[in-house]
Amino acid sequence: MNELNHISTLPPKEATKGVCKDNLTTFHKQLFELQNVFYADGRYGLLIILQGMDTSGKDGTIRHVMTCMNPMGVRVQSFKKPTKEELKHDFLWRIYPHIPEKSMIQVFNRSYYEDIIIPTINNTLTEDKFKHRCLLINKVEQHLEQNNILVLKFFLHISSNEQEERIKERLTKPHKRWKYSKEDKQAAKKYEEYIEAYNQIIGQCNKVPWHVIQADKRWYRNYSVAKILTEYLKKLDLKYPNS
Amino acid sequence: MNELNHISTLPPKEATKGVCKDNLTTFHKQLFELQNVFYADGRYGLLIILQGMDTSGKDGTIRHVMTCMNPMGVRVQSFKKPTKEELKHDFLWRIYPHIPEKSMIQVFNRSYYEDIIIPTINNTLTEDKFKHRCLLINKVEQHLEQNNILVLKFFLHISSNEQEERIKERLTKPHKRWKYSKEDKQAAKKYEEYIEAYNQIIGQCNKVPWHVIQADKRWYRNYSVAKILTEYLKKLDLKYPNS
Repeated sequence: MNELNHISTLPPKEATKGVCKDNLTTFHKQLFELQNVFYADGRYGLLIILQGMDTSGKDGTIRHVMTCMNPMGVRVQSFKKPTKEELKHDFLWRIYPHIPEKSMIQVFNRSYYEDIIIPTINNTLTEDKFKHRCLLINKVEQHLEQNNILVLKFFLHISSNEQEERIKERLTKPHKRWKYSKEDKQAAKKYEEYIEAYNQIIGQCNKVPWHVIQADKRWYRNYSVAKILTEYLKKLDLKYPNS
Repeated sequence: MNELNHISTLPPKEATKGVCKDNLTTFHKQLFELQNVFYADGRYGLLIILQGMDTSGKDGTIRHVMTCMNPMGVRVQSFKKPTKEELKHDFLWRIYPHIPEKSMIQVFNRSYYEDIIIPTINNTLTEDKFKHRCLLINKVEQHLEQNNILVLKFFLHISSNEQEERIKERLTKPHKRWKYSKEDKQAAKKYEEYIEAYNQIIGQCNKVPWHVIQADKRWYRNYSVAKILTEYLKKLDLKYPNS
């Protein structure tokens, strides 16, 4: 499987920065209102999963897309390298307390998918365990949706060259430098392995579909995520309750 | 004590809606940047406490002021009527897990101050216990600040007339109706008792100062809170770390 290698990381030719930025502003205004009625409506919760390699722009997406929504109804949880305590538990243990309740939008900055990706890269996950985790995640995501906790999944797709550029940026730009970690460089060396792992995950954990975002250009990435999220919320036909 | 009765709930005469709204837009942009460097700087956490009577605009303040900041670094916790489980514990038990860590801005929509206000209104708190809770809160807030978890407290001050108007609005406007609860009307009947309780709290829990916001006009309330928050963050002299 090498599907991701066939998906461009660049915006489509017809996309222009100016138009995408204007549209983003429009989406911001719509999302500000949509989130409010989502909260009042109360029939659904929404779990937004952001995955992508180091420097693919997960933090930036949250900053430039999610900031337009009321933090009373939007929470963000970042999942970093598991702690010693967390490793004593099954991989869903640290995740579950952050599953949103109805009315809330919860953003996962990385997620349980890291518990497949990282051990796959490190060669510590047997093929059987890999399959087991994918099946379990499918079941959990379906279970959530059956309980009106909707799941919206994004993979931020960047090229190997763009990743290298961004690591350089982190080393040279003062307002980016604090984000740099030595692990960035190590991860970049394994770009192809990550792509292969994501190919398998996107192929197998597909009961709730993935949105692969062409993420080399930040303006197109922000536009795309905002567009998909706006359209997704609009389709829910949300209403202010009568009483 | 009747200090609040001597503080206007209306904007000062020189304030105009147009100018305040323009300034709010400017504060939004500054807060978007300030929150980012606050997060990166990592020396402080910030606890923002919003108190005020029913309909005083706590939710609205969060929606119109805090929305401009990245939800990755801003969390909101609303404290409602304590559950049976929570009542089995001391009143700080349900609060403490939400005290922010460094880098984070945590908004409390109501707070431990409710655990003085409500039992005072209901006549279930002895004078001794009232004093004990005020002293304890002073100590806790000082303790937090000594640990670089800063505390910024707002009291949204509305008039009795304005409160009545807003309750009527909740009953008549479709997009407000879902917020109405029967308790709103009951609380409004006790406006003077609430003011007296707040007078005592603001007088006694003053080791960290209160900002009393003239909140009858939503545009002036949003402007004031945003202004105080922006200036507060600017004074911290925040920096992006070198590495």
